[in-house]
Amino acid sequence: MTTKQGKTWKTRKKKYPQKNNGPAPNKKFSQAGRHETLFGFHSVFEALQAKKRNIHTVYVSDKRTDQRLGDIASLAQNNNIPIKECAPEQLAAMTDSKMHQGVAALADNFPVRPGMEILDVLEQNPRPCFFLVLESIEDPHNLGALIRSAVCAGADGILIPKNRSALPTPTVSRTSAGAMEHADIFLMTNTAAVLRKLQKNGVWIMGLDADSTNTVYNADMTMPLALVVGGEHKGLRPVVRKLCHEILSIPMEGRVNSLNASVAGAVGLFEVVRQRKFSW
Amino acid sequence: MTTKQGKTWKTRKKKYPQKNNGPAPNKKFSQAGRHETLFGFHSVFEALQAKKRNIHTVYVSDKRTDQRLGDIASLAQNNNIPIKECAPEQLAAMTDSKMHQGVAALADNFPVRPGMEILDVLEQNPRPCFFLVLESIEDPHNLGALIRSAVCAGADGILIPKNRSALPTPTVSRTSAGAMEHADIFLMTNTAAVLRKLQKNGVWIMGLDADSTNTVYNADMTMPLALVVGGEHKGLRPVVRKLCHEILSIPMEGRVNSLNASVAGAVGLFEVVRQRKFSW
Repeated sequence: MTTKQGKTWKTRKKKYPQKNNGPAPNKKFSQAGRHETLFGFHSVFEALQAKKRNIHTVYVSDKRTDQRLGDIASLAQNNNIPIKECAPEQLAAMTDSKMHQGVAALADNFPVRPGMEILDVLEQNPRPCFFLVLESIEDPHNLGALIRSAVCAGADGILIPKNRSALPTPTVSRTSAGAMEHADIFLMTNTAAVLRKLQKNGVWIMGLDADSTNTVYNADMTMPLALVVGGEHKGLRPVVRKLCHEILSIPMEGRVNSLNASVAGAVGLFEVVRQRKFSW
Repeated sequence: MTTKQGKTWKTRKKKYPQKNNGPAPNKKFSQAGRHETLFGFHSVFEALQAKKRNIHTVYVSDKRTDQRLGDIASLAQNNNIPIKECAPEQLAAMTDSKMHQGVAALADNFPVRPGMEILDVLEQNPRPCFFLVLESIEDPHNLGALIRSAVCAGADGILIPKNRSALPTPTVSRTSAGAMEHADIFLMTNTAAVLRKLQKNGVWIMGLDADSTNTVYNADMTMPLALVVGGEHKGLRPVVRKLCHEILSIPMEGRVNSLNASVAGAVGLFEVVRQRKFSW
């Protein structure tokens, strides 16, 4: 490493560290080793239940004695996780929020996987897969609501772009009522590349758009499927729209023609459930 | 009226004004003559479009020149509504919110109707009616989301209890993205009495509850129908549950078994749309 070549490599590594790392290891995506503070009852409870990430310490308010916090404390105790009591003000400062409901947890960052690993899920799953692709959802509340609906509908994976999107933070975990802690989330550096790969592997790409005359109720959603929900403001980007096999709408019957992105996504997700389980 | 009988009646009227007023006039419910301040682009825009309530003055920020505010200004001008420019800080103080998006409007309170008037809608409507009954939705964001979904799904009326519930305030109008301005909202003083009256008039009452084994996908939703969504915390109250002909769930496929009330409501609402328009 003292050769000229070594020196050059070192210099380049410093300048472009990611380019020289070879295939991106999971570490880069999951930011393993970094910590964040979960807050809110459901978020902490489901994180303890799901066991998808290490939880280092659970903090509970010394002003509260309710049953729900007792459930969290015993769950933490069973998993040998230290529990500390602290003042509500400390919890507020720690979580940067007043919405902590008397509980917080120091945990590893949420373990996301690289977008291309969605193909592993596709291969391992015996039944036709069903993914939710979220294109530029900017509002953490909408992201949390969509993740919660996707987990409840039994989606096999949720794909989120690494840029131009809200990310799976503690706030999103809270707004998903903890459902995020059970989700398999894949971060995409290039949405189009992932969608192309899914296409090649026999997955049907269906985009949701209010302007389409074709509705989710006319489409066959029983095949391997990726349902794409556009951003709140601009909907599906043209590059993503081009990659969709079908563009579908939720049919509107009223005087107002605009559903919230998270509601439109939920209606689409549960139409998949209906067609697969309740249609004969 | 100077007889003894007349005097007694007058005294009683003073003590129990509501009992002696005969059929409750709309005024009591709509609080006509009272004003409130709408805020946010969609809320003010849709209020101007819907023309369901008087708008006295539109206030726009003197710091913004975007197209959207221009649209509102021209709509107000066409309806001879005065437009005043003011500083964003004044808008914030006026609306008690930072979410005004540079626009507010002084308007009459939202015109709600007494719960029992839902029977007029039932009589006047040629097709099978479809109502949404919201039982104790406490979060204004959930109420706004449910009203928005109901308007988009073409529900013929939305019934809300007068007590134990969020009410159609400017905040709810904003969270409904203005859809509330087009909604027909009925305030119930006694939910059970209104449901009984609907039952007697041939309306099928269907309650949503996560614990039911019978799902919305197994039920026939093409008859005259009232879909009842329970509160966020306690779900359907026993008195309301007893009045339901059927209790239905949204079937869960995942590891988490709890949908947000507004999402569960939306999935139920659009299942009604599907069965009525897309099922053959």
